[in-house]
Amino acid sequence: MANEQIPYKIYLDEQELPKYWYNLRADMKNKPAPLLNPVTHRPMTKQDLAGVFCEELIEQELDDTTPYFAIPEEIGNFYKMYRPAPLVRAYCLEKYLQTPAKIYYKFEGNNTSGSHKLNSAIAQAYYAKKQGLLGVTTETGAGQWGTALSMACSYFDLDCKVYMVKCSYEQKPFRREVMRTYGASITPSPSTETEVGKKILAEHPGTTGSLGCAISEAVEKASKTEGYRYVLGSVLNQVMLHQSIIGLETKTAMDKYGIKPDVIIGCAGGGSNLGGLIAPFMGDRIKGKLDCQFIAVEPASCPSFTRGKFAYDYCDTGMVTPLAKMCTLGSGFIPAPSHSGGLRYHGMNSTLSQLYADGLMEARAVLQTEVFDAAVQFARVEGTLPAPESSHAIRVAIDEALKCRETGEEKTILFGLTGTGYFDMYAYEKYHDGKMSDDIPTDEELEKAFAKLPHVE
Amino acid sequence: MANEQIPYKIYLDEQELPKYWYNLRADMKNKPAPLLNPVTHRPMTKQDLAGVFCEELIEQELDDTTPYFAIPEEIGNFYKMYRPAPLVRAYCLEKYLQTPAKIYYKFEGNNTSGSHKLNSAIAQAYYAKKQGLLGVTTETGAGQWGTALSMACSYFDLDCKVYMVKCSYEQKPFRREVMRTYGASITPSPSTETEVGKKILAEHPGTTGSLGCAISEAVEKASKTEGYRYVLGSVLNQVMLHQSIIGLETKTAMDKYGIKPDVIIGCAGGGSNLGGLIAPFMGDRIKGKLDCQFIAVEPASCPSFTRGKFAYDYCDTGMVTPLAKMCTLGSGFIPAPSHSGGLRYHGMNSTLSQLYADGLMEARAVLQTEVFDAAVQFARVEGTLPAPESSHAIRVAIDEALKCRETGEEKTILFGLTGTGYFDMYAYEKYHDGKMSDDIPTDEELEKAFAKLPHVE
Repeated sequence: MANEQIPYKIYLDEQELPKYWYNLRADMKNKPAPLLNPVTHRPMTKQDLAGVFCEELIEQELDDTTPYFAIPEEIGNFYKMYRPAPLVRAYCLEKYLQTPAKIYYKFEGNNTSGSHKLNSAIAQAYYAKKQGLLGVTTETGAGQWGTALSMACSYFDLDCKVYMVKCSYEQKPFRREVMRTYGASITPSPSTETEVGKKILAEHPGTTGSLGCAISEAVEKASKTEGYRYVLGSVLNQVMLHQSIIGLETKTAMDKYGIKPDVIIGCAGGGSNLGGLIAPFMGDRIKGKLDCQFIAVEPASCPSFTRGKFAYDYCDTGMVTPLAKMCTLGSGFIPAPSHSGGLRYHGMNSTLSQLYADGLMEARAVLQTEVFDAAVQFARVEGTLPAPESSHAIRVAIDEALKCRETGEEKTILFGLTGTGYFDMYAYEKYHDGKMSDDIPTDEELEKAFAKLPHVE
Repeated sequence: MANEQIPYKIYLDEQELPKYWYNLRADMKNKPAPLLNPVTHRPMTKQDLAGVFCEELIEQELDDTTPYFAIPEEIGNFYKMYRPAPLVRAYCLEKYLQTPAKIYYKFEGNNTSGSHKLNSAIAQAYYAKKQGLLGVTTETGAGQWGTALSMACSYFDLDCKVYMVKCSYEQKPFRREVMRTYGASITPSPSTETEVGKKILAEHPGTTGSLGCAISEAVEKASKTEGYRYVLGSVLNQVMLHQSIIGLETKTAMDKYGIKPDVIIGCAGGGSNLGGLIAPFMGDRIKGKLDCQFIAVEPASCPSFTRGKFAYDYCDTGMVTPLAKMCTLGSGFIPAPSHSGGLRYHGMNSTLSQLYADGLMEARAVLQTEVFDAAVQFARVEGTLPAPESSHAIRVAIDEALKCRETGEEKTILFGLTGTGYFDMYAYEKYHDGKMSDDIPTDEELEKAFAKLPHVE
């Protein structure tokens, strides 16, 4: 190891930071299908979206031909405060696993939001400010997105209104206080601030809320308040575009040392971190410049890729959003409670769904307890305490490295370590105490949810 | 800012990482006074210390003539997993304060322990392992030290037994779970595992414990268990030696860009982070090579420098440890509850105490609410959520930068950002809700504690 040329951590210099985001759609032969208006079933226009989203973000959302978007200087300056994120060579994990594989991970947790979410939050806040808006609304479940957006809005002096799922608001007071520190206002959802919130409270007194409900409240608030728009932390193509900074930095760092990945692994909830990590590598694969395997890892409790349908569906449970063609379990599907809140989403980004349908990307579903086995192994040898979501990728990276031990192959494995688990210790406690369960939906449950998919000609 | 040559963050390359720790005592004209045996009042010998501490750590503790200690390769490899720590130029804070000062901070929070504590934890675990020991014992209050030691012991496959102050054990379950994740066993203190614990429980049924009691339990456990030794996270000179990595990295980074600090600021509890940060700069000042002001910042609720006596005192409340000559409030002094648990210590590292007595370093005491004002300002413009302890340094850095705004001086201000506040959100909540108080000891309280200082001829 002493003579090894690759350092433990590769940090790019400031001048090596990407100046552009990469729009993978521009290089795809089969483009992702367009968003449809939920009433007319016609492709969404800029006008359709203007009341909810910022103008420049709509441009980014709908553009599937422009390969590069320049990163505005103001966003670049913010990126410099917490980026580059290190590309880490997992020497200690390799040694522990006794594998000939070379394992790398891109670590996105070294900022106060604790995850990659900040990459898109700052972009969305910037465009809102540039458009002269007063503020933005959003929802948050586990709280990483809400934290990231609070930080971004604080930086650009923009009002930030977060609807936080009521049970999270009560169970995760520390997440709430981080957001307050950055000046955001946090409302437990459902609330009496919106019509949809009041309606739900009347129908289900005492409900502890859901992400679907919080989305509906945030959208209503934005569309009814002058100078406000709604922003979202995953699923959308604009978010995947901003997250391409993860993959671009990773590729620059790897190119610098002449490293080529054989396998790239990422966890997938709405798909933004995975899409961002793989974007430039997938672009190269499509152009025939790279031979590489791509693996999406999802929870067995919410298996959008491996057991979902590739169909048009609503992006929210309340069925008010546009329709997206995606791998979906049905917008009515309620995943079992799990400790990877960030992966409990019924659908998947439409670009990634298309890549999966075209056989360019694989997917694996893993059990929660096996994920925590991997998380604890990783923490003990590599130091960093991973988020439960990120640990899905660790699980499969370890599995692949162990296969290499069997076959003797010296594969180069790259995975995305999207965040830290500091606010997930309740989950670790359950794991340590042997009280964590593995819930998998039955075929009947899925068929029931599929039956409610919208009919699109 | 676009033409500025200094990047937002300076990361050293792996080959630029320090290969040696720096022992400031070797270059001091007035050496710190030796530790004394509490019974004979004679200088502690290696034999006196051998039952409690590891052999090589005793060498480091007692050596005030060797300027450099080589960092063993095994420790260096662990350092590479989370170091170098970035030296950050606080461009956004400067702009926000409209100051001509140039502000830099060395950020030690980018690791799972959340603080600089890991720098010494890994060294102490290494020497314990090298000596063939089975495990180590320690105490923890706020939990940063316990977390760091758990991580270090996990890496070297060493047993780790942590006595955690009972009220922290109950109020900070997440800290406890992080330690469990790294395989440590955590006992709420006082416990029935030790004689001293049983005695205290009998005398004070229902007590929620104190750091002094937890130290006594950890020391007893180590000295009565074959193959175990006791380790400590601050105060000792060996800890300050290991923490010199902070200052050495900072100096290398500054030298690379031709930057010379005019003021160096750090928070001070036991003194290890401050001592580590200033060590090489103070060495240069003593040699006449650098003209620089050094400021220790302590809580007004526990003002060891600014209102303490420079005298021999016990290092623990139970009065079983050796005597150290230091700035002390008296080992019987109980600071008011505050949210900077890491700074609630009655004494101060003896090297720093000597520097203060010799006029080489200044000190300021600050109020808790003013510290949180600074913490929130900092978080909102610089992104990172600081630990309450670290925010003491931020407070004075901001004060100094504002003075520069008045005078027009373009001073270069360097401060230590020792850690993050993720596990301190209860304190932030109190601050946001306006429920935080400022408690300052009365002169009578201090006189009462001073009266119990041991009489040393």
